[in-house]
Amino acid sequence: MKTVCKKISFGDSLALESGQTLSGFELMTETYGELNSDKTNAVLVCHAFSGNHHAAGTQEGEEKPGWWDEMIGDGKTIDTTKFFVVSLNNIGGCHGSSGPTTIAAETDQPYGANFPEVSVSDWVETQKLLADYLGISCWEMVAGGSLGGMQALQWAISYPKRIKKAAIIAASSKISTQNIALNEVAREIIKKDENFHNGDYLVKGASPKNGLKAARMLGHITYLSESNMSKRFGRKLQDPDNKMDADVNYEVENYLQYKGEQFSKTFDANSYILMTKAMDSFDPAKDFDNNLVKCLQSIQAKLLIASFDSDWLFPKEYGLDIQMSAIKAGIDSTYLELEGAYGHDSFLFYSDQYAAVLKNFLNSNG
Amino acid sequence: MKTVCKKISFGDSLALESGQTLSGFELMTETYGELNSDKTNAVLVCHAFSGNHHAAGTQEGEEKPGWWDEMIGDGKTIDTTKFFVVSLNNIGGCHGSSGPTTIAAETDQPYGANFPEVSVSDWVETQKLLADYLGISCWEMVAGGSLGGMQALQWAISYPKRIKKAAIIAASSKISTQNIALNEVAREIIKKDENFHNGDYLVKGASPKNGLKAARMLGHITYLSESNMSKRFGRKLQDPDNKMDADVNYEVENYLQYKGEQFSKTFDANSYILMTKAMDSFDPAKDFDNNLVKCLQSIQAKLLIASFDSDWLFPKEYGLDIQMSAIKAGIDSTYLELEGAYGHDSFLFYSDQYAAVLKNFLNSNG
Repeated sequence: MKTVCKKISFGDSLALESGQTLSGFELMTETYGELNSDKTNAVLVCHAFSGNHHAAGTQEGEEKPGWWDEMIGDGKTIDTTKFFVVSLNNIGGCHGSSGPTTIAAETDQPYGANFPEVSVSDWVETQKLLADYLGISCWEMVAGGSLGGMQALQWAISYPKRIKKAAIIAASSKISTQNIALNEVAREIIKKDENFHNGDYLVKGASPKNGLKAARMLGHITYLSESNMSKRFGRKLQDPDNKMDADVNYEVENYLQYKGEQFSKTFDANSYILMTKAMDSFDPAKDFDNNLVKCLQSIQAKLLIASFDSDWLFPKEYGLDIQMSAIKAGIDSTYLELEGAYGHDSFLFYSDQYAAVLKNFLNSNG
Repeated sequence: MKTVCKKISFGDSLALESGQTLSGFELMTETYGELNSDKTNAVLVCHAFSGNHHAAGTQEGEEKPGWWDEMIGDGKTIDTTKFFVVSLNNIGGCHGSSGPTTIAAETDQPYGANFPEVSVSDWVETQKLLADYLGISCWEMVAGGSLGGMQALQWAISYPKRIKKAAIIAASSKISTQNIALNEVAREIIKKDENFHNGDYLVKGASPKNGLKAARMLGHITYLSESNMSKRFGRKLQDPDNKMDADVNYEVENYLQYKGEQFSKTFDANSYILMTKAMDSFDPAKDFDNNLVKCLQSIQAKLLIASFDSDWLFPKEYGLDIQMSAIKAGIDSTYLELEGAYGHDSFLFYSDQYAAVLKNFLNSNG
């Protein structure tokens, strides 16, 4: 599989949904496979909340491959011998694209908390500029899970002529009150870390690691299914010789401590806040009198909407809501509830059923 | 309604389940109604995680009445013209009974994090000593919701001859992996507050208010039902002139900020940790080869087990599990799933259905 990792600079200023402007930006991208001469075999995969451009393959020194490696590769579900797969880190992230850790030209300091608010629509705008740059006039498919699925949906709405298929997986047309509430708790935890310094921790040489860790521990619970956690950990006591923290009693506590600790070393706190805000505010129907049917009417792409039965963060009602509106809007759409052993995170993992659905959708006539 | 609030000192040392010993302790109690001459009309109500001895009536200067005021009072479900209702703050709490904020005689300093670990069984022991003190040889009923329901169940197991009825509401015979995980996140948030000082904040004149606030915000989400939150707040934006925090966008965020802030002023961080640990470790079947049927076989009390349909923290499966084991154990037990508009918190609020069930149970022949 031909893999190219490249940072691309865009010099034009970008008008953001918030009304703010970004005077140029960079996108860290990774591509898999080769673009055909007609440029008609391109697939865009959009990352979820804490994902990045590295979707497939294993880089040198890496323990784990990219986040959707089970699906993307030669002969895999998204077959890189046939398709040219484009992946990128979204702006506002912390893996190479312009974001809070980037040095702002105006101040010669990291943006920090001053990086402008970004939205799912803004990401689609940057991805459209990336498509222009690559000479791709129409994606064969845009696909993503969770916040990535929201981008796939927004693509179909924003650029009806530039996308043939949208795979909207474990996603929603707007998140629930409970999800906003959970995101607010995560933000609260991070912002009250003594090392957060109102978002200016980089300038101060500090890191709000504790806040990031606890926020991720909470997030992690919501990504897993209760039944999976029960099966995997139950009420098993942690081996006393191998505790992350002296007060830990149960294995599940130790696991969360470990996962949170690892995450806090690799993610940026301002990005965490900014990404959750983008998730909260996503609601494409708001520009159509809160009418999702109206909002979807201009779509020309085929939609695949999939939920997972063990997902309690984005349960099937979310997917069904999009599907019902798509049907009423008279657009070409199919919905499936898939078996998933891993709760919300199921969208990341291969299963025969899931792979068959996605593969058939991608290879169907557009 | 005759109401007596009294702090009672117990001089004997108390051997705790953990192996540690408490050399004497105090219980803050509140009673409603009058004990009859036979001392046969006594009802014990056990508080949930953040509750206290003040279960009914409104004290001077108080905005809200006690936590179960909708159920306890003259002519109410637990009718104080007929029954003598006993309520207390459990040890380890922070509302007058011995706990982390109490001055330890040995050091002349607050116990802080050195207050010994307590368990549901330990609470039942102290409540049994309170019954002895009051001359009550057998409770007509022991009742409670959530962690209070666990105490009611433990009473029936520990003292079969001293309890006629146990009302086990919105409770469980052991909490799930997911609940342990959520408790661990709350503890992590509190312990990493810069003002926690390994639990010695009182001695240092500090208060880990931020940690307590965020932990409570998380807890609050789990106490409410998703549908109730949706109905009440939906995605309504917060009035910009009335924000708890400049970054708040949605009403639900502001509500949680407010609730968390209020709570952080009245609760003790070490108590929070200790109470969640008691909840995690509750598992009476562990002393019976993890066999709940065996564990329940000695029970002589009648059991009422009730769950609420909107409770996702302690869903009906928990209640059904106790009921199935009770049936197999051949003891007198009834189970009901009640309609509840408020998620897990439904156990606190009156409904005709709920009140009828509890009243009929209390007034039935023991």
